[in-house]
Amino acid sequence: MKILVLNGPNLNLLGKREPEIYGSQTFEEYFEELQQQFPEHELRYAQSNIEGELVNLIHEVGFDYEGIVFNAGAYTHTSIALADAIAAVPTAVVEVHISNVHAREAFRHHSYLSPVCQGVMAGFGLYGYKMAIDYITTLY
Amino acid sequence: MKILVLNGPNLNLLGKREPEIYGSQTFEEYFEELQQQFPEHELRYAQSNIEGELVNLIHEVGFDYEGIVFNAGAYTHTSIALADAIAAVPTAVVEVHISNVHAREAFRHHSYLSPVCQGVMAGFGLYGYKMAIDYITTLY
Amino acid sequence: MKILVLNGPNLNLLGKREPEIYGSQTFEEYFEELQQQFPEHELRYAQSNIEGELVNLIHEVGFDYEGIVFNAGAYTHTSIALADAIAAVPTAVVEVHISNVHAREAFRHHSYLSPVCQGVMAGFGLYGYKMAIDYITTLY
Amino acid sequence: MKILVLNGPNLNLLGKREPEIYGSQTFEEYFEELQQQFPEHELRYAQSNIEGELVNLIHEVGFDYEGIVFNAGAYTHTSIALADAIAAVPTAVVEVHISNVHAREAFRHHSYLSPVCQGVMAGFGLYGYKMAIDYITTLY
Amino acid sequence: MKILVLNGPNLNLLGKREPEIYGSQTFEEYFEELQQQFPEHELRYAQSNIEGELVNLIHEVGFDYEGIVFNAGAYTHTSIALADAIAAVPTAVVEVHISNVHAREAFRHHSYLSPVCQGVMAGFGLYGYKMAIDYITTLY
Amino acid sequence: MKILVLNGPNLNLLGKREPEIYGSQTFEEYFEELQQQFPEHELRYAQSNIEGELVNLIHEVGFDYEGIVFNAGAYTHTSIALADAIAAVPTAVVEVHISNVHAREAFRHHSYLSPVCQGVMAGFGLYGYKMAIDYITTLY
Amino acid sequence: MKILVLNGPNLNLLGKREPEIYGSQTFEEYFEELQQQFPEHELRYAQSNIEGELVNLIHEVGFDYEGIVFNAGAYTHTSIALADAIAAVPTAVVEVHISNVHAREAFRHHSYLSPVCQGVMAGFGLYGYKMAIDYITTLY
Amino acid sequence: MKILVLNGPNLNLLGKREPEIYGSQTFEEYFEELQQQFPEHELRYAQSNIEGELVNLIHEVGFDYEGIVFNAGAYTHTSIALADAIAAVPTAVVEVHISNVHAREAFRHHSYLSPVCQGVMAGFGLYGYKMAIDYITTLY
Amino acid sequence: MKILVLNGPNLNLLGKREPEIYGSQTFEEYFEELQQQFPEHELRYAQSNIEGELVNLIHEVGFDYEGIVFNAGAYTHTSIALADAIAAVPTAVVEVHISNVHAREAFRHHSYLSPVCQGVMAGFGLYGYKMAIDYITTLY
Amino acid sequence: MKILVLNGPNLNLLGKREPEIYGSQTFEEYFEELQQQFPEHELRYAQSNIEGELVNLIHEVGFDYEGIVFNAGAYTHTSIALADAIAAVPTAVVEVHISNVHAREAFRHHSYLSPVCQGVMAGFGLYGYKMAIDYITTLY
Amino acid sequence: MKILVLNGPNLNLLGKREPEIYGSQTFEEYFEELQQQFPEHELRYAQSNIEGELVNLIHEVGFDYEGIVFNAGAYTHTSIALADAIAAVPTAVVEVHISNVHAREAFRHHSYLSPVCQGVMAGFGLYGYKMAIDYITTLY
Amino acid sequence: MKILVLNGPNLNLLGKREPEIYGSQTFEEYFEELQQQFPEHELRYAQSNIEGELVNLIHEVGFDYEGIVFNAGAYTHTSIALADAIAAVPTAVVEVHISNVHAREAFRHHSYLSPVCQGVMAGFGLYGYKMAIDYITTLY
Repeated sequence: MKILVLNGPNLNLLGKREPEIYGSQTFEEYFEELQQQFPEHELRYAQSNIEGELVNLIHEVGFDYEGIVFNAGAYTHTSIALADAIAAVPTAVVEVHISNVHAREAFRHHSYLSPVCQGVMAGFGLYGYKMAIDYITTLY
Repeated sequence: MKILVLNGPNLNLLGKREPEIYGSQTFEEYFEELQQQFPEHELRYAQSNIEGELVNLIHEVGFDYEGIVFNAGAYTHTSIALADAIAAVPTAVVEVHISNVHAREAFRHHSYLSPVCQGVMAGFGLYGYKMAIDYITTLY
Repeated sequence: MKILVLNGPNLNLLGKREPEIYGSQTFEEYFEELQQQFPEHELRYAQSNIEGELVNLIHEVGFDYEGIVFNAGAYTHTSIALADAIAAVPTAVVEVHISNVHAREAFRHHSYLSPVCQGVMAGFGLYGYKMAIDYITTLY
Repeated sequence: MKILVLNGPNLNLLGKREPEIYGSQTFEEYFEELQQQFPEHELRYAQSNIEGELVNLIHEVGFDYEGIVFNAGAYTHTSIALADAIAAVPTAVVEVHISNVHAREAFRHHSYLSPVCQGVMAGFGLYGYKMAIDYITTLY
Repeated sequence: MKILVLNGPNLNLLGKREPEIYGSQTFEEYFEELQQQFPEHELRYAQSNIEGELVNLIHEVGFDYEGIVFNAGAYTHTSIALADAIAAVPTAVVEVHISNVHAREAFRHHSYLSPVCQGVMAGFGLYGYKMAIDYITTLY
Repeated sequence: MKILVLNGPNLNLLGKREPEIYGSQTFEEYFEELQQQFPEHELRYAQSNIEGELVNLIHEVGFDYEGIVFNAGAYTHTSIALADAIAAVPTAVVEVHISNVHAREAFRHHSYLSPVCQGVMAGFGLYGYKMAIDYITTLY
Repeated sequence: MKILVLNGPNLNLLGKREPEIYGSQTFEEYFEELQQQFPEHELRYAQSNIEGELVNLIHEVGFDYEGIVFNAGAYTHTSIALADAIAAVPTAVVEVHISNVHAREAFRHHSYLSPVCQGVMAGFGLYGYKMAIDYITTLY
Repeated sequence: MKILVLNGPNLNLLGKREPEIYGSQTFEEYFEELQQQFPEHELRYAQSNIEGELVNLIHEVGFDYEGIVFNAGAYTHTSIALADAIAAVPTAVVEVHISNVHAREAFRHHSYLSPVCQGVMAGFGLYGYKMAIDYITTLY
Repeated sequence: MKILVLNGPNLNLLGKREPEIYGSQTFEEYFEELQQQFPEHELRYAQSNIEGELVNLIHEVGFDYEGIVFNAGAYTHTSIALADAIAAVPTAVVEVHISNVHAREAFRHHSYLSPVCQGVMAGFGLYGYKMAIDYITTLY
Repeated sequence: MKILVLNGPNLNLLGKREPEIYGSQTFEEYFEELQQQFPEHELRYAQSNIEGELVNLIHEVGFDYEGIVFNAGAYTHTSIALADAIAAVPTAVVEVHISNVHAREAFRHHSYLSPVCQGVMAGFGLYGYKMAIDYITTLY
Repeated sequence: MKILVLNGPNLNLLGKREPEIYGSQTFEEYFEELQQQFPEHELRYAQSNIEGELVNLIHEVGFDYEGIVFNAGAYTHTSIALADAIAAVPTAVVEVHISNVHAREAFRHHSYLSPVCQGVMAGFGLYGYKMAIDYITTLY
Repeated sequence: MKILVLNGPNLNLLGKREPEIYGSQTFEEYFEELQQQFPEHELRYAQSNIEGELVNLIHEVGFDYEGIVFNAGAYTHTSIALADAIAAVPTAVVEVHISNVHAREAFRHHSYLSPVCQGVMAGFGLYGYKMAIDYITTLY
């Protein structure tokens, strides 16, 4: 099974940025752990700060991969383009947020992506990525 | 570890009500599966259609149990009393919705509970309860 | 034909409470009249001030009875749980309000129940209950 | 007793327009049935697509007739002029909608007419006109 | 100087409708008084309950007359067509309301016509028509 | 092919009204040009300032003609009755605005008609009518 | 008859400030004209830029004078204190605006004072003050 | 004089829940102090987490007792049913909040109960209950 | 203990203004009663209709007095300057309203002052001032 | 004449994505047809999923080309940057949408681009691009 | 060059009030520093807690001085009168806020003054006054 | 000291685009002047029309440079991603707008960036960049 773990803007700073909210581990380090936890699946990791490149990545894998675990960061709340991209591809997309966005600023409570994703989760820390992959593996 | 699985209004109809959204398995049947998946933990199940009885149940276990997996159903969107109950107890509460509430009516997009829960998930079907218990077991 | 006449909060005070709006007859007295007007049908009356008990009553009869005449009182405007209960059962539900709610406070103009009821009426006094039963008897 | 059955815009298409919502009977046919059901009363039927002509009709009968059964169609949601006309005449006006407007587009949920009508009903199909006439006959 | 006094919907009921708000004099009677007060000017009176006929009347006189004293009644609050008609003609239009609309329902507080009229007045009773004519006579 | 070109309120003033926005040609003159451009089709022109007459016209041709090119003027923004009329007839309706309504007052940005029209265009001047007819001729 | 002409903030600049909107005559000059036009009445003029002093002036004359012609300037839109002062005194208050406030910024469209004034006018230039006094003289 | 002190949801946790906001004394302990401070009056204490039971309690005492001191907790902000119950009984109801709700989350700033209560107070800690009883004793 | 009783705009009319809402006693008379009820404390009374003078008075006593009982009248709903003044001084401020502002116009339901006051009360008539002083005396 | 046909995010999927809305032809195929229909003009086609690259393209051609036919896809509803780019260049820009965006989700009803474009059209399918080019060729 | 530094309500408390936000230096001390930094210009300092006196000060200097550096404090968010005063005078006005108002309460995010000021700045501490004076000196 | 001057979308057109708003100097020319004015500091200039590249630039310098002077252009009003980037880096960021955005369209009045910037300024023309750099040099 091929699954893309896709991170949006500022998540490349994970481990550096506001560690009291996001923890101090870099995502690359965490991704190695993830790969070890799912040795039978082909996991790929990508990150971009550019909205349109995220659209490109969804197009690229969305017709072939079994799933995308997508943390769109701030674009979650502002990007209809990403929502359209998710709706346009047949693969299952799970929306993940590391922190509990509902306990933060009001503008983080709305997601353009949620209505077109299979499932949504927030507040489970990095462990949420594992939960999302775990869920996708149950779909087939 | 003691964990309460708590369901709110109309979830007693699971298996009978709108199966195209919620599936045809009763929750009691599913709960037995859950217990078999976590044999090392003490899982308890409770359901009520009465908001105040859900408050009572949270008070009852909230100082002793390690976690609550809570699907408050329609009260999610209208009950500040339940949010206050969750905020008042030290146990970890995970908010779970079977369907993707963000893909349904607008009044289901807001949750009074989310800001006071540890984590939130929606759209993973009954499997979401298992994911939530799984997450709670990682907290200690 | 079995039909439940179901009243919500404060309607037990009918005849005592604000008679200039609701009249001075108790509902029990009026219900006897109703039964005499529909001798060929089995009418049952129930009232509760507790939202969740109203949910329970809808569950109890909603798979067997031919109809529910429902005046949810103040819960009309605040209860998604009752709307979900109505949507979850196959029986025909008619929403009735004694007074013309649209001529009262703004918060009484919106009903969570209307979209999931078969029909809605307001302002016909107690006579509205008779009209609703009359309508249900035409459905079969 | 003299009662005007008054229909607003597009209701002349009844039987032709969107039969899945409104049924395939023309209103003229239905009105003959109505007259037979109330042989002791003088029923009159009028329809106009022009807001001001509806105002004129209300003025014309509003001081003499015992009641008006009024389905203002789309003008329900946009016409303060019709609301003023209803408020200006002493006759009892009952607002009727064939379909359950609360289960349709949001702009059909608000009525300028409801606060100045005696009673309001929606969702009972053509049978609602009969219920409204029946109600008016109880007023005197 | 030629001035049109133009009344909108329901104002033909003046003297009959809600006399506690509008007084018991018919507008025709009052208009005769007006003509006597401005013997040197040619006053014309027109009324219609039909929005489009009011548009027609504005078109008819708006290029020739020196002014229009316009009480659009309920159309004040709903008609962009009338506002466009006023903006389209060179004559001076004064908006008049008999009652103080700002002391009545909220939906009477907004006027589509005010921004395109020369001046606006409300609450001066029938005397407001005289004030408006008086004002127009000062413009030339 | 039979196509109705239908204009709403104040468009009879074209050539007279605000020429800096709408140009100085009358619509009748322009309509003759249109007819010459589509000699193989039967074009009809109608205009009314009365909302209900526009409803009548749509009813009249909406079951026979192949299309309606409709500039509803100000009624675009206020008339649900016209939207219902369009939805009620099978013919293709194209909404046209001479000026770019989105660059004008905010209340001109919303159209009740757009969701029930086949297509919408604004800002192309009188040429837009030709484009609309051109489009309709491609439909059959 | 004693009448106070009362001006609010920035109206002391009349003749200096934005003459394209308000004209170039000072209010003192205009007030002399007013006194000559109403020789049989005792007119007094007051102006203040301080909200509370305007409240004081209303208190001072509001129990003795027959009327107040009040242009509250910017306080029209922000002062509940002035509205309370007007409501607290028995004298007739007429709200006057020199320019047509409805054709200016949106925040000038709402007046806290209008609901508690006898009448309201805007857009008649300085002539509006005369019209207002004229109206007050008809009240007794 | 008979006075009911009535507490709503989560107030049974007083002394346990968020002591930095509500203090560490249980309400039962405080209620004994209250009884000692008003030895000449008959004070009764009741608490429920169930909205409908609070309605029942208001019905039970509302026709006999001289007053109710009511802290409805979270139901303050969501319950029209409780507001209707208060409006339906003749007894004087004083709304009390221990903390200053206006300094907390926005959804705690609105109360459905305030318009139908005699008086309202917030922010005086447990002492507010004493102030409310003191006030009620002055009413007779 | 030094306590300032501070009244805002129009409260100098107490006893004259709208006695059906505020009673017929002047505040000066009532204040003498208050002083007799708290002979051991130094009470001072001040009133102003000018927002900025109320700011000055809060500055003047806010660092020395033990408390301020503040009825800001209409400025309650419009003055951020007063809220800032209260927040800037260390003394305890209690917000008092004679009438139940929540049962009056909607614009009286919001208070800029409440979030920065120690406690708030409304609807207890003049007795509320005594309750507020009583509360302040318990703070030290 | 040089004209740029410019497509925004996800339009590269045309033919693959949601064919029930957008048809099954790729845009490249359609563009060849377009070039054949306007052999006398130099048409260029560009597409990007990246908002800023679309800005760059507008800058690149906006001072030289005679027109841009722009379908900004989802960026229509979220991008002020694109609106600023259009406003900054002298070329004529026509906004095109393949589907009738007004008949889809509410967030697709607002366009930041429309007020700064020459004209706007929606719902004409791919044929709309031809209409837009046709229009631009009439401008010179 | 003559420049007025003008401070609004509560800024007289600078150095006393909330020093964690505003610092502990009094404005008088800071103003002496300012004068030393601009020895070639005539700086004047004024402060008032009274909105109308600030209007007066703007009138007084607004026709003679080269500029006003204006920190209107809380009146920034509530005073149209001050905005009108600024618009009425020809001098350049720079709006200054010591703290970053956009990082504080929502009601501090809107300024009535900004649209009529030359420039606006916030968050630069007392240094912002120097920056504003520096800017004004570049204007001539 | 190292300071990045960072410009967002369309600012590369400075000197070409709407010179009546932004002046006719290119930013590159102005930047040379800036460097001459701060010879002791290392100024760097960057511009991009791509939101994500601006995020990248902030990441690149945000841990090393002493400050960023940031004019995000249109992204100011739409980009949470840029706000998150600013919040994620320790350097001081000053938000600058050349024109007074508060005097332009309403959608330019809100900035996602302001709450996370040190200071904000608008309306000072290109001189604002110098003021911002000047301010940053005072921070260390």
